[in-house]
Amino acid sequence: MKVGDHPTVETHPHRTVLTSAPQDAPVDRATAAARRVIDAMLRTDRGNANLDRVAEELNSIADHLEEHAPEVAERMIDMWSGEGVTRHDPITGPENAIAPPLVLEGLEDGSVQGVVTLTLPYQGPPGCVHGGVSSLILDHVLGVANAWGGKAGMTAQLNVRYHKPTPLFEQLTVTGKQISVDGRKIHTVGDIKNAAGEVCVSVEGLFIDAAVPRPR
Amino acid sequence: MKVGDHPTVETHPHRTVLTSAPQDAPVDRATAAARRVIDAMLRTDRGNANLDRVAEELNSIADHLEEHAPEVAERMIDMWSGEGVTRHDPITGPENAIAPPLVLEGLEDGSVQGVVTLTLPYQGPPGCVHGGVSSLILDHVLGVANAWGGKAGMTAQLNVRYHKPTPLFEQLTVTGKQISVDGRKIHTVGDIKNAAGEVCVSVEGLFIDAAVPRPR
Repeated sequence: MKVGDHPTVETHPHRTVLTSAPQDAPVDRATAAARRVIDAMLRTDRGNANLDRVAEELNSIADHLEEHAPEVAERMIDMWSGEGVTRHDPITGPENAIAPPLVLEGLEDGSVQGVVTLTLPYQGPPGCVHGGVSSLILDHVLGVANAWGGKAGMTAQLNVRYHKPTPLFEQLTVTGKQISVDGRKIHTVGDIKNAAGEVCVSVEGLFIDAAVPRPR
Repeated sequence: MKVGDHPTVETHPHRTVLTSAPQDAPVDRATAAARRVIDAMLRTDRGNANLDRVAEELNSIADHLEEHAPEVAERMIDMWSGEGVTRHDPITGPENAIAPPLVLEGLEDGSVQGVVTLTLPYQGPPGCVHGGVSSLILDHVLGVANAWGGKAGMTAQLNVRYHKPTPLFEQLTVTGKQISVDGRKIHTVGDIKNAAGEVCVSVEGLFIDAAVPRPR
């Protein structure tokens, strides 16, 4: 993530949304609908007599979308230009149906925070968030916290601790904050809390300041 | 994961598939089609004039699936009974459109291994797998390695190290192996290698032997 393109706590001292909010655009509406399909597919009755027709309809939609897709190399340039950077990632991206999506705000104290309620596609143990999904979310949140803190980097190491099960179907609060920059080494911490405010998962991350080239 | 229900290297000394292979069932076909939609949605031209119609069609499919969905509590009992356990997780589940899906085999040396090629929905830095996606996959692979090793548990700690960028659009090999069981503490390691066999991401996990109740 190129810090220069993003608001930081220095440039925007007040509470600021750092992720791309869903826009009133066709691709946002189509992605939100795809997200509903993913969730409903896990919930629908396995004996639903129309599932083969659903498969046909979804394949027909995929065919159509693919017919109107540029070459991947060309599409990548577009994805990574301008504001595109935060629109397609698998955690906050309104254009990525895999993303819950999480919306993150930058706070005045230099931390970032968001709330999210996860459903069956993100399940690990029965009724709980998959431990790997928690680490996926926290890795991303630390990256956004670094951008907000003013110094971004590539993940070198993540240490994730699981304190108690993280519940599905309950509003979770996700937080991240850059705590130190020592030369090229950036230390950042974060956690996921349940609705009662208890820490379910915490993370410490070490990032290395390194420029990431964009496609062009 | 309840070890008793799963093959282990003791009970199945030869190479054995540990994940649920996609079946020739309507829900598997519909989920595979949903996976195509997720991918194609990220690739299609943002100016595609039919995206609003795609949104309508997807919402109509979601409405239908939801109309035929039992209450979540009832559905959960079904999800977690019998073989269901590995059919819906977000990494290997053929019924979960978020899953790539990864297929894992248990090998005679006690390790588990699978290959996967990831595409745009799993992107972090340009052209690379999101670091959090790598940790999601590795957390799950360690869990399967524990089941194969004969002693499963809940994740207590994950230490993920990022050695080099993990490429999209290239066959990756994912491996996990339980290395020690010390009382209730289980140590398990794993990694993701690129097509050249270089380690991109490695992980050490600490798991605690604890029974997880299933819904009933």
